[in-house]
Amino acid sequence: MSIQIKPSNFIANNNHNLLTMDPRNDFGIKEDQISKEFENIKSEIGLYQYKLFAEKKKALLIVLQGMDASGKDGVIRNVMNAFNPAGCRIESFKTPNSEELSYDYLWRVHKKIPGKGIIAVFNRSHYEDVIEVRVQKLKEKTIWEKRYQQINDFEKYLTENDIEIIKIFLNISKEEQKKRLDDRINDPKENWKVSMDDYQRRKKWDRYIYAYSDVIKKCNTKYAPWYLVPADKKWFRNLIIAKIIQEKLEVINPKFPVQKFKIPTSS
Amino acid sequence: MSIQIKPSNFIANNNHNLLTMDPRNDFGIKEDQISKEFENIKSEIGLYQYKLFAEKKKALLIVLQGMDASGKDGVIRNVMNAFNPAGCRIESFKTPNSEELSYDYLWRVHKKIPGKGIIAVFNRSHYEDVIEVRVQKLKEKTIWEKRYQQINDFEKYLTENDIEIIKIFLNISKEEQKKRLDDRINDPKENWKVSMDDYQRRKKWDRYIYAYSDVIKKCNTKYAPWYLVPADKKWFRNLIIAKIIQEKLEVINPKFPVQKFKIPTSS
Repeated sequence: MSIQIKPSNFIANNNHNLLTMDPRNDFGIKEDQISKEFENIKSEIGLYQYKLFAEKKKALLIVLQGMDASGKDGVIRNVMNAFNPAGCRIESFKTPNSEELSYDYLWRVHKKIPGKGIIAVFNRSHYEDVIEVRVQKLKEKTIWEKRYQQINDFEKYLTENDIEIIKIFLNISKEEQKKRLDDRINDPKENWKVSMDDYQRRKKWDRYIYAYSDVIKKCNTKYAPWYLVPADKKWFRNLIIAKIIQEKLEVINPKFPVQKFKIPTSS
Repeated sequence: MSIQIKPSNFIANNNHNLLTMDPRNDFGIKEDQISKEFENIKSEIGLYQYKLFAEKKKALLIVLQGMDASGKDGVIRNVMNAFNPAGCRIESFKTPNSEELSYDYLWRVHKKIPGKGIIAVFNRSHYEDVIEVRVQKLKEKTIWEKRYQQINDFEKYLTENDIEIIKIFLNISKEEQKKRLDDRINDPKENWKVSMDDYQRRKKWDRYIYAYSDVIKKCNTKYAPWYLVPADKKWFRNLIIAKIIQEKLEVINPKFPVQKFKIPTSS
């Protein structure tokens, strides 16, 4: 069966309101209906990537943003494994180190932009410079409020230079986050992932949502729109993200280079 | 069933002679016997990697070397996809660019050494600086002959600093290489991979084998031994390499960090 949900359904628009969106929404789909389709989509993504890699005309940048425990790592583990690791780079942006801080905030980001033929997945990104920086008051408003336009300009530049961009916000509920953090603490295999900072940041949940709402309003461009993905249900989140990537690669439409070589007669 | 082949069978020793080894050797195993075991080994590798990533005490460097079309890309596509891409980096060493050439030959290599918790796969490596450089006469003998010891010292330094090393030589026959190159040329999906240089290099097959034999003799150390893997049969090659990685990770024996956090009472 083919699930009739279009990735474009999830592109942010002016009527979207993070506070009223339902992170549990699954559009009536049942988990046991989709496992075959999910695997098919991943195979298709894999073939597209191979063509992208062979053609070396375009790059693809996938930005993952979301609250702690919203599933960024899970998406990488369960969706991005569709890619041949030789052509895919996972880049995690943590708290900037002292060298990074000595530069402009896009310096460390630009270094990790994918080359032609490559897919890069940003686990967090330059958007932390208008989210974390704002919520935690790391810079003056006069500084971060200029960044929305700077980011738009930067992303415009990238898309004009053959780097296609997908930006995904993983929308989980505050209750689901609590459950996931608590589960991690109780699981010896996951406990190391938790930091008390996660619980500290939770106290500023509403401020984060407000900051994200602004980002989604101000940096939702034609060339690099935001996808808002309901993320309380992991399988649904994975399916939708796989579909978003599939559709994007379909539009990029990479092709194997035309045959150039013939077998040499003397070999 | 469990196939009773030990990775240590494939470690080079003084009696090994590349010219007399059989690249088609499969130890009497049949392809249809191993698919289940292969998947199990990959799952186990995946769990080990997760622990390595969590513990962040050790890094693992996997060096892949071999003739053109010997299967380095295939190993990455079919074995290295056992890893969560977030903790695995594939690094391809092509012809050095002008910046790289302006430095010492290990400069670009050191930059790509994995950090703690990370697995890096080198698709070609610093060994090209004693293989390609020697066979193609890119440097004087007085320069490259010093490199064996330099490489041994470098690898010793790495292993003394928590970077474990696996070095694999993919041993294909000259006939199998011809078949693979010709097949690629005839396949519109693979044609782009072929370069006429591949056929040029083929003419120096014996000189490459001689250079590899020297490398395997001079850089086969206790701390970073060479594994010589028969590579004419792709499924056998993949199985053996998965087993080598599995055994190495078993020896590293990474563990989830001891539980540190408890659920905060006020959250």
